[in-house]
Amino acid sequence: MAQNIYDNPDFFSGYSRLPRQVHGLAGAPEWPALCAMFPEMAGKRAVDLGCGFGWVSRWLRENGAKAVLGVDLSESMIARARQTTADPAIDYRLADLETIALSEAAFDFAFSSLTFHYISDFDRLARMIHRSLTAGSHFVFSIEHPVFMAATHPRWIEDEDGRKTWPVNRYAIEGERRTNWLAKDVVKYHRTIATTLNVLIRAGFVIEAVDEFAPSVQQIRENPALKEELERPMMLLVSARR
Amino acid sequence: MAQNIYDNPDFFSGYSRLPRQVHGLAGAPEWPALCAMFPEMAGKRAVDLGCGFGWVSRWLRENGAKAVLGVDLSESMIARARQTTADPAIDYRLADLETIALSEAAFDFAFSSLTFHYISDFDRLARMIHRSLTAGSHFVFSIEHPVFMAATHPRWIEDEDGRKTWPVNRYAIEGERRTNWLAKDVVKYHRTIATTLNVLIRAGFVIEAVDEFAPSVQQIRENPALKEELERPMMLLVSARR
Repeated sequence: MAQNIYDNPDFFSGYSRLPRQVHGLAGAPEWPALCAMFPEMAGKRAVDLGCGFGWVSRWLRENGAKAVLGVDLSESMIARARQTTADPAIDYRLADLETIALSEAAFDFAFSSLTFHYISDFDRLARMIHRSLTAGSHFVFSIEHPVFMAATHPRWIEDEDGRKTWPVNRYAIEGERRTNWLAKDVVKYHRTIATTLNVLIRAGFVIEAVDEFAPSVQQIRENPALKEELERPMMLLVSARR
Repeated sequence: MAQNIYDNPDFFSGYSRLPRQVHGLAGAPEWPALCAMFPEMAGKRAVDLGCGFGWVSRWLRENGAKAVLGVDLSESMIARARQTTADPAIDYRLADLETIALSEAAFDFAFSSLTFHYISDFDRLARMIHRSLTAGSHFVFSIEHPVFMAATHPRWIEDEDGRKTWPVNRYAIEGERRTNWLAKDVVKYHRTIATTLNVLIRAGFVIEAVDEFAPSVQQIRENPALKEELERPMMLLVSARR
């Protein structure tokens, strides 16, 4: 079973105050890049894996999806998500992505935001998602970038010119990483980009596009703190087709 | 035109003494991983882009290729390559990958080793290679990994535990990088992994496999200096299909 840090009260309280939870999709700078990977949503049955408060699940429904299933490991998340909508075409369910089994060909679009790096068995999950999609369906997701999470001590340092610099080590050594982010000992799983893409390809997906999120000039103008995201990739966005 | 550093006598002299030039493919630790991406070579017409001394061109011919074209920007390289074989089915030609135009559907396999990071217009090159291949052909290549070449000062540093660590900055800022490697001011072009893969996909290729070379336990046992390659990816290997 995946670690359920989200139901830790301290973590949940900190998480709820993140810009992307307070402001929703407008607080997620990678959202426009993710969104650009979406197919036309009209009439689609969508699944949102690790739906959190349900921001994307509701967006998918508002943008034409016929039905949306949002799943999350966290009871607090699912409870909050359920409070935000009375739409009978959105179903929020408690489930662990390490063991979840969706019905065959039950969906026409699969999505996940910043969740899969908490999952140890991505191979099983990718094959399960492939089975749950109809032929031609898109699968779009984001994860923490492996360059961001590889090192024993991931943090900003300065190079000899004073430039913000991100140290990388243990890149080829995949597996558990423990970090202190909102709570102590949050468990994540480091996989190389190659592994993430090869797992998808072996599961039967065709890679359609890859994005290593970087802010636009416009985004940096509006939020100068984003400028540091030019120095190292923090998020990996993938669009694949079944 | 691409910088022709290889015909600089100092560079050429240093380059000729590199393990992979003295020992050939046995001196290239990524060779087994690259080779594992190759299709059956029997009867294929192959092109080797940036063939250098022709090690791979000859290997392809010895492993069944019907004909091999090896191209390189460097006269010294092509001269040396020509001296190594009298096989009429291997053709070594002087050409600049920035401007080369191969005939349509002239090849059944395209290969390149550690060359494309010297090319500024990868988009043009990828589309040209796609056109030059027959349907179903494989295209396998290696480049310097963007994590290896992104930073202003790419070099080993130590983290607080004394672990070898690779600093990354300017990852999202693509374009020219100048390094001193065997000679001063060697010009390379940094592109993100996303850009490299998206250029291939937009040219019409399907990504078959990606490898961020890391040495095996066996390779580290035989050559302990390779161990540091576990800390950061130095090479990106890609297999694509037309």
